[in-house]
Amino acid sequence: MSHEPFAFRVTATEGAARRGTLLTPHGTVQTPAFMPVGTRGAVKAITHRDLEDAGAEIILGNTYHLHLRPGDEPIARAGGLHAFIGWPHPILTDSGGYQVFSLASRRTVSEDGVQFRSHLDGALCALSPETATDIQARLGSDVAMVLDECVAAADIEHRTSDIARTAMERSVRWATRGRARMLQLRHEPASAPGVLITNPAQAQFGIVQGGLDPTLRTESVQATVEIGFEGYAIGGLSVGEPTDVMYDLVAHTAPQLPAGQARYLMGTGMPDDLVECVARGIDMFDCVLPTRNARNGQLLTRHGVIVIKNARYAEDGQPPDPACGCYTCRSFTRAYLRHLYTAQEMTAATLLTVHNLYFYLDLMRRIRDAIGFGSFGKLRQEFRQTFSRRQCST
Amino acid sequence: MSHEPFAFRVTATEGAARRGTLLTPHGTVQTPAFMPVGTRGAVKAITHRDLEDAGAEIILGNTYHLHLRPGDEPIARAGGLHAFIGWPHPILTDSGGYQVFSLASRRTVSEDGVQFRSHLDGALCALSPETATDIQARLGSDVAMVLDECVAAADIEHRTSDIARTAMERSVRWATRGRARMLQLRHEPASAPGVLITNPAQAQFGIVQGGLDPTLRTESVQATVEIGFEGYAIGGLSVGEPTDVMYDLVAHTAPQLPAGQARYLMGTGMPDDLVECVARGIDMFDCVLPTRNARNGQLLTRHGVIVIKNARYAEDGQPPDPACGCYTCRSFTRAYLRHLYTAQEMTAATLLTVHNLYFYLDLMRRIRDAIGFGSFGKLRQEFRQTFSRRQCST
Repeated sequence: MSHEPFAFRVTATEGAARRGTLLTPHGTVQTPAFMPVGTRGAVKAITHRDLEDAGAEIILGNTYHLHLRPGDEPIARAGGLHAFIGWPHPILTDSGGYQVFSLASRRTVSEDGVQFRSHLDGALCALSPETATDIQARLGSDVAMVLDECVAAADIEHRTSDIARTAMERSVRWATRGRARMLQLRHEPASAPGVLITNPAQAQFGIVQGGLDPTLRTESVQATVEIGFEGYAIGGLSVGEPTDVMYDLVAHTAPQLPAGQARYLMGTGMPDDLVECVARGIDMFDCVLPTRNARNGQLLTRHGVIVIKNARYAEDGQPPDPACGCYTCRSFTRAYLRHLYTAQEMTAATLLTVHNLYFYLDLMRRIRDAIGFGSFGKLRQEFRQTFSRRQCST
Repeated sequence: MSHEPFAFRVTATEGAARRGTLLTPHGTVQTPAFMPVGTRGAVKAITHRDLEDAGAEIILGNTYHLHLRPGDEPIARAGGLHAFIGWPHPILTDSGGYQVFSLASRRTVSEDGVQFRSHLDGALCALSPETATDIQARLGSDVAMVLDECVAAADIEHRTSDIARTAMERSVRWATRGRARMLQLRHEPASAPGVLITNPAQAQFGIVQGGLDPTLRTESVQATVEIGFEGYAIGGLSVGEPTDVMYDLVAHTAPQLPAGQARYLMGTGMPDDLVECVARGIDMFDCVLPTRNARNGQLLTRHGVIVIKNARYAEDGQPPDPACGCYTCRSFTRAYLRHLYTAQEMTAATLLTVHNLYFYLDLMRRIRDAIGFGSFGKLRQEFRQTFSRRQCST
C-alpha cells in the first residue's frame, strides 16, 4: 500500500462514454470498470486467484456485513480489509446503508442515523454518517461511500413524491456530516483515537439520490458536488423501475457530475445496462447479478441466458459459449455443467461464477478498447443486435 | 487416449514399501498414490485446475452415483467419463458395490447380484458382477473394480464369523464372473452390442475380502489371484475396526499379493494410515477424509487437526500451516478462513479442500522421494513423532 493520492484521469472519450484510469493506494483500475461483489470479504463461490484470472481489478465489500461479522475492529487490527482477506488490489466499500434498509429488521431512522437489529442475532446496532465513515476507515478500503438514506424499493411509486425529497435532503445533510468526519480522520487522526485508520489515502465518494424525479436529481447533484468528494455515485436506481426510466435518469444525471471525477452507478446491472450506461457517461458499476445468477444455474452469454438445468442440455457437448475464453468454456460442456448443477455439486456454482464474471469483465475490456479506438458506437449497436435477456436458442 | 497396455513397475523398495509407476491409457501415476474421490465426476468443492495444481495424478469416480445420475449410457455417448467431466488424466472407478451396501435402501442380495432402490428417487435398480463390469466399460475408467459383497460396518463384530466367510466366498464367485465379462468385452466386444466401450485398454482389479480373519484373507488372496487381474485391492477395512487391527491385516495380506502388480487399499485413511500402510506394501489409496473434513471445517496439518471455527483462530494471522506450500497457506490466514467458514461462504470449503488435498498429495510425494532415497524409515519415524490426530496446539 502506498500513500499516493487517489486520482482519476479520463484518457479517451466517445460521445458521453469515457475511458479512464482510477489510481488508488492499492493499484490502478481501468475504467469503465465492473466491480464483483464480495459481500463478506469474499466474492461468493470463487477464489481470489480465479477472480484475478477472470480480470477483476477491484472488488466491492459490504460494510454492513463486515461490521456485524467479523467486525471492523478485528479487521483493522489485522491491518485492514486488504490484509484480512488477502486481496492486494483495490477495494470499494459501500456505506452499509443499503443493507440496513433492505436486510435489517426493526429499523428506526432519525436525523442522527439509523437504529436496527442485526439480521444475524437480533443485536441492537446503529449506523450514523460518522460511524459509517469510521467503520470504513477501519476497513481501509480504497474508496469509501457516504451513508445515504435509501428509499425502500416498495416505495418506488412514491419516489417522485415527498418521500424522495425528504430522503434526498436528509442524504445531503448526512453527506455533509460524513465528509466532515472523513476530513477529520484524514487531517486530524489523533482527534479520533478510537478509529484505527488502515488506509490513510482512502478516498470518499458522495451519492446522488432523488428517486425518479429529474429535478430532485439535479438538486442532489448540486448539493453533493458542493460538499466535494473524490468521486460521485448515482444511488437509488436499479430498484425495480423500468429500464428506460433508469437510462433516462442516468443520461440526465451523469453529465451534471464533474467531468474530471469518477462516476459510479450503484447496483447495476444486466450486461446491456452496462453498455447503455457507459454510453451515458458512467465509469464504474457493481452488481450481484453475475454471481447470484451463477449460483442459481444461469449462465449469461453474448447470445442470451443459458438455464443450465434444462433437459435440452443433458447431452449438449458444446461449451456454454463457444466464443468465450474463460476456464469454464475452455474446459467443460453444457452437459457436464448441467450434471454438476442437478447433482448439487458446489463446483457448479464455481464454474458458472467463473464464466459469468469473465463475461462481465471481458465486456468491460471490450468497451474500454472500443472507446480507445473510437468504435464504441459500433460495439453498442452490435451488442443491441446480438445480446438478449431471454433464454439462448442455441 | 492411447491403447497402450496397462502396466505397473516397481522402481525402488525399502523394506516392504515400494515406489513405482502405474502406466494407464490416460497417463502415468507415480506410486504410492493417493486418489482424491470424485464421487459424481467432480471432487467436491474444487475445480480440476486446482486439483491438478495440488498434484493429483489420478481420481476416483463412483460407479453407483454415476450410473444413477447422469447415467453411464449418456456418459458413454459423450465419449466416456474422461471426456464427459473434462479430466484427461487417469481415473479409477469403484464397482458401485460399496454404495449399494451403504446408501441404497430395500437391498436384496442373491447369488445373481444385488437389487436395490435408488437413494435419489426410489427407482428399482440391480447390479450384478456383469452389469458392474458393463457400466464401468461405458464409463471407460483406466482401472475398473470387480463387484464384491461388502459386509455392513454394523456387522463388524461378526466379521470373523460365518458372515465374513459367506461374503468372501460369494465375492470370489462374483469376481470370477466379473473377470469373465471383462475378458469378453475386451476380446469379443462385438458379442456385447449393448455396451459402448469407451476405453478398450481399461484394466480391472480384483478385491480381497475376508473381514478381520487372517485365514479368510489368505484364502481370498489365493482365490482372487488365481482368477487373475491387472492389480489387486484390499477391501472391507477402514470400516470401524481399531487401527492396529487394520495395520496387522494389511501387513498379513499385502505381501501375499503378486509383487509385480499394484496393491490398492480401499477407503483409507488418515495421513498416518497412509504412511503405515505404505510401510506394509500398499501402492494406492483413496479416501473422502481430506475433502469431507475440509467441508466440515477441519484442516489436516503435519502437527495435527485445525478445527477452524474455534474462537482461538478469530484473530490468528498465521496461515493454517506455515510450512505448507499450498495456495491456501500461501495466501490466507486462519482468521480469514474462520470468518469464511462461520459466514458459511462456499469458498471456505474450497480453500480447506485445496489445503487438505495438497497435504495428502505432498505427503505422497515425500513418501515416494524417501523410498527412492532409502530414507522412508526416517520419514516414517519423524511422522510418528510429529503428526497427531488431535487438535493442533499452535
